[in-house]
Amino acid sequence: MAVLKVHGSAISTATQRVIATILEKGLEYELVLVNLREGEHKREPFISLNPFGQVPAFEDGDLKLFESRAITQYIAHDYASSGTPLISFEKMPILVNWMEVEAHHFEPVSSALAWELVFKPMFGMTTDAAVVEEQEGKLAEVLDVYEKRLSQSKYLAGEEFSLADLHHLPNLQCLMGTPVKKFFESRPRVSAWSEAILARPSWAKVLELQKKNH
Amino acid sequence: MAVLKVHGSAISTATQRVIATILEKGLEYELVLVNLREGEHKREPFISLNPFGQVPAFEDGDLKLFESRAITQYIAHDYASSGTPLISFEKMPILVNWMEVEAHHFEPVSSALAWELVFKPMFGMTTDAAVVEEQEGKLAEVLDVYEKRLSQSKYLAGEEFSLADLHHLPNLQCLMGTPVKKFFESRPRVSAWSEAILARPSWAKVLELQKKNH
Repeated sequence: MAVLKVHGSAISTATQRVIATILEKGLEYELVLVNLREGEHKREPFISLNPFGQVPAFEDGDLKLFESRAITQYIAHDYASSGTPLISFEKMPILVNWMEVEAHHFEPVSSALAWELVFKPMFGMTTDAAVVEEQEGKLAEVLDVYEKRLSQSKYLAGEEFSLADLHHLPNLQCLMGTPVKKFFESRPRVSAWSEAILARPSWAKVLELQKKNH
Repeated sequence: MAVLKVHGSAISTATQRVIATILEKGLEYELVLVNLREGEHKREPFISLNPFGQVPAFEDGDLKLFESRAITQYIAHDYASSGTPLISFEKMPILVNWMEVEAHHFEPVSSALAWELVFKPMFGMTTDAAVVEEQEGKLAEVLDVYEKRLSQSKYLAGEEFSLADLHHLPNLQCLMGTPVKKFFESRPRVSAWSEAILARPSWAKVLELQKKNH
């Protein structure tokens, strides 16, 4: 078995999503650091691996992928027997449905809020209060749906932790360090769910890696 | 075999994505019309089918799904032997990668442009020229990647038409009726690809259905 190669940066949310998946699976990997400050992601050889010039990119032998959620799905399917299952072959339609919910409901609003509340201040830019208010309203609507869903099952796609939960981790972590945290904490089931998934040992290792590379 | 039920509206892009998939598969289905003008999608019984209050929702016997791309993937997998394959079990990682590209690169920019250039004028609202310019810049970058990709294979995920192409159809159709069309036409391979996928007989049927329900 070739060692999985992740080209990226431990401070990138999309790279973190991939590494968390690999750690849940207990697989060996090599993190090939891409220096974002130097703009290495915008030029060769990196853009041959990801034509959008964004981290991560991934190699498993001859297979090359670059979209973080495509990489996690590949790993979950092709290394099904290692570590945490992360997918359920019998319940794939429901699992895919909730992965799509993360992609089209949680990701846009959580990325917009992380940009305003975490990354803009980090880069010395000014947070736009109107955008924050608008996106907070949308986040509340999404989390109301999650609260109801989590009254039916412990995790979003059923009783077991899966990719549908894992995909939330990087943006969820970002938001838990901002005042937006209250939207999660005020909903009992969302609060229990976010605590449970943030407490995964794989995620603790991702955060250690992030600190070391900061 | 139960008849597939699609709850939605032929004027909704997400509903169109599902119907196009069913037609490619040559499957029977029933379109249960949801009256968007009357706000039927925002109340019961519909919101029990889609908690986000958006069309479509889908039923196949006891299975209920509501995210359009989860529905298309379910149909492509579970009715693999009917009609157009739409997925390739051997090439799933690459296919999923390009479905993710549609979801995270094409969808945000094409939806923003469709909103500004098609739906805002339809609702008597004013198009924001600054937003259009910003999004046009992003669209150009996405289509540059597509132009290069389509020099390597006829369709995005390989030599055969697949879900990775099909998912583009509704927003692509919207944009071809706007000045943004030029971004597609000025790139030879993107132009040939968009012509080819818009010419699918399944898509002609979706457009007929849209006209009848308009």
